Amino acid sequence: MAVGSSKITPLQVVQGVRIGVANAGIKQTERPDVVVFEIDSQASVAGVFTKNAFCAAPVHIAKKHLAVAENQGRARYLLVNTGNANAGTGQQGMLDGELCCEQLAKKVDARASQVLPFSTGVIGELLPTDKIISVLDTAIGSLEADNWENAARGILTTDTRIKGHSIAFEYQGKTITMTGISKGSGMIKPNMATMLGYVACDAEISPDLLQTLLSNASNKSFNRITVDGDTSTNDACMLIATGKSGVQVSEQNPELLNLFVTHLETLMLEIALQIVRDGEGATKLVQVVCEGANSTEEALQVAYTVAHSPLVKTALFASDANWGRILAAVGRSGVENLNVDALQIYLGDVCIVENGGRAVNYTEEAGSAVMKKEEILIRICLNRGAVEDTVWTTDLSYDYVSINADYRS
Amino acid sequence: MAVGSSKITPLQVVQGVRIGVANAGIKQTERPDVVVFEIDSQASVAGVFTKNAFCAAPVHIAKKHLAVAENQGRARYLLVNTGNANAGTGQQGMLDGELCCEQLAKKVDARASQVLPFSTGVIGELLPTDKIISVLDTAIGSLEADNWENAARGILTTDTRIKGHSIAFEYQGKTITMTGISKGSGMIKPNMATMLGYVACDAEISPDLLQTLLSNASNKSFNRITVDGDTSTNDACMLIATGKSGVQVSEQNPELLNLFVTHLETLMLEIALQIVRDGEGATKLVQVVCEGANSTEEALQVAYTVAHSPLVKTALFASDANWGRILAAVGRSGVENLNVDALQIYLGDVCIVENGGRAVNYTEEAGSAVMKKEEILIRICLNRGAVEDTVWTTDLSYDYVSINADYRS
Repeated sequence: MAVGSSKITPLQVVQGVRIGVANAGIKQTERPDVVVFEIDSQASVAGVFTKNAFCAAPVHIAKKHLAVAENQGRARYLLVNTGNANAGTGQQGMLDGELCCEQLAKKVDARASQVLPFSTGVIGELLPTDKIISVLDTAIGSLEADNWENAARGILTTDTRIKGHSIAFEYQGKTITMTGISKGSGMIKPNMATMLGYVACDAEISPDLLQTLLSNASNKSFNRITVDGDTSTNDACMLIATGKSGVQVSEQNPELLNLFVTHLETLMLEIALQIVRDGEGATKLVQVVCEGANSTEEALQVAYTVAHSPLVKTALFASDANWGRILAAVGRSGVENLNVDALQIYLGDVCIVENGGRAVNYTEEAGSAVMKKEEILIRICLNRGAVEDTVWTTDLSYDYVSINADYRS
Repeated sequence: MAVGSSKITPLQVVQGVRIGVANAGIKQTERPDVVVFEIDSQASVAGVFTKNAFCAAPVHIAKKHLAVAENQGRARYLLVNTGNANAGTGQQGMLDGELCCEQLAKKVDARASQVLPFSTGVIGELLPTDKIISVLDTAIGSLEADNWENAARGILTTDTRIKGHSIAFEYQGKTITMTGISKGSGMIKPNMATMLGYVACDAEISPDLLQTLLSNASNKSFNRITVDGDTSTNDACMLIATGKSGVQVSEQNPELLNLFVTHLETLMLEIALQIVRDGEGATKLVQVVCEGANSTEEALQVAYTVAHSPLVKTALFASDANWGRILAAVGRSGVENLNVDALQIYLGDVCIVENGGRAVNYTEEAGSAVMKKEEILIRICLNRGAVEDTVWTTDLSYDYVSINADYRS
């Protein structure tokens, strides 16, 4: 199951990035499971990674390679495999990840530290390095600029749809193009999830600024989505700026910088929401807004408590306007000195809670009408401050249980 | 579904407590849905209540009545209804709750403040006071000492089993008897849940000491169980000490006090675990122990993150030794500076994680053998401190979704 249309915009070429794919048979499917990105030597590369204490070997390696001084915030290759997360694999996992980087580097005449590895799939099994290495020539041989859709397919695991989006915009007669793809379906929670994202643009941006832009945009997109509250050991989102458009984005040009940020956030939110729409077993896309909070922490505390509540999520699945469960979730969110008489809760435009109880004008019909929709807005107004934040989630269906009870069998 | 046997020990009479039941037809079942406890005028009564900010009208009223100075920590009647939680009902809910207390008080010649009300069921609908009041005479007319099993049945909602336990022990030739019943199945989390508990004993205990004993024992039982992480607006656990045994429990007699505490904790843990075994859709009883923590907070942070993880819970349902999901949950639990190389994770006696990855001697067969059992122990050794704590939970099954997607329909 998934929410809404599976159609995505055509994925546009970004000059300075070529992509190759291959099927190493890591997981027995006919889908490609190895993807190689080749990045122009002048490009800047930034990354954000999972905060899980058990972060996987490829995350350790990618962070380390990205920080190698002589690379100066650049990387030449991204090597992605699905089917095996190379997580919980201890020292052998590190050796295996490094080995794959070295083998790819040797074939393309680069340094191993210029290759960043990414793995997603089952945790705790050793990476089948032989299988991956054996298809590197195939992947390299298929490198093409117009290969984003194959890449989007090649990074999927339990996803039922490919995820991607492109935006092109003009600035002083020149066109800047950005294209991004993502994968993720379960184990989705802030601070990245079983989530991989690759976004490239042809603007010229310094590595430091690029890292800042990526971190900020992640906090408005990938770090605000949640399917089941579980965060993964492997999540990463990479942002590449090739400079091939000849347009330079920098803090010296705030107008262009703002324009770029707006488009980047739009693109990243779009591919993040595609993940939520394809959430495991999802039948609804649910936006939870908490406004009038004293701080971002407080707003997120409330929004996530509602978004993670199994009782709220099963009610959403049943299209049941069981607003009492939303109220109970807000009540247990742990906000200090919460004045329940002062807050309101809305389902779409329908006020469901005010003055500590069911809103006077609320009717079951009005609530049900909202709950029947495929995309639902839950809005909590705390009325105690000026901060607002938003998270996106799904409902909890039979299929979520089915997918996750059967995943390894 | 439920875990283990549904048999409970015979529930013994506690002198000084009589119980009456009636069917008010609040929810259309043939089960009684109104229960009245009559308590001896010399008895002490203590209570612990939900910490949900949206706590229900009966919780407000029960706390207020218990605190009325002239009652001196005593109450004469407990009035329980199921089918309607009188929560999220605003000012009218308070009036309705008080009305029921007044009506009962009038019939038994007590003050309204000597009656403590308890409600559980659907949130946000006004309490059908007429229905409740109309059966008060029936409930009063059926007051009997040997009525605990009917009471246990009368307080159920989505539960599939009655829950109760009795313990009797000797001290210097005299017998102390304690009997408790509970209800709860979903919306179960620490700080009480859609959980009601009523425990009575015939020891003589001052109200202040009784309150301390109840709070402490709750933190080793009811406040350590979780089915879905949702906490309710209505939870309460009451402890009654009638004094009818003629045995006085006080701080002046530490030997007897310790003996009493041990038995009270045993009884409360038993009726708490009966709730978990009957958790909505439960097929497993799962004990999560975190040891070697620096603090109780840290131990609980880890234990609850594992216990609430939908991915861990679906793997438990599938009897899948997907230890990677346990590892990932520990990794995201938010413990500061967690050294993943120093910790171990066990499934039963089987070490599954050490040195940052899968334990060297671990085999899938050994893990599967543990996961196939109906009662499963997950033990996480952080190896950074001396504190240990435990929580109990269930798996996440199709039936959990089914029960909660259909509850109001």
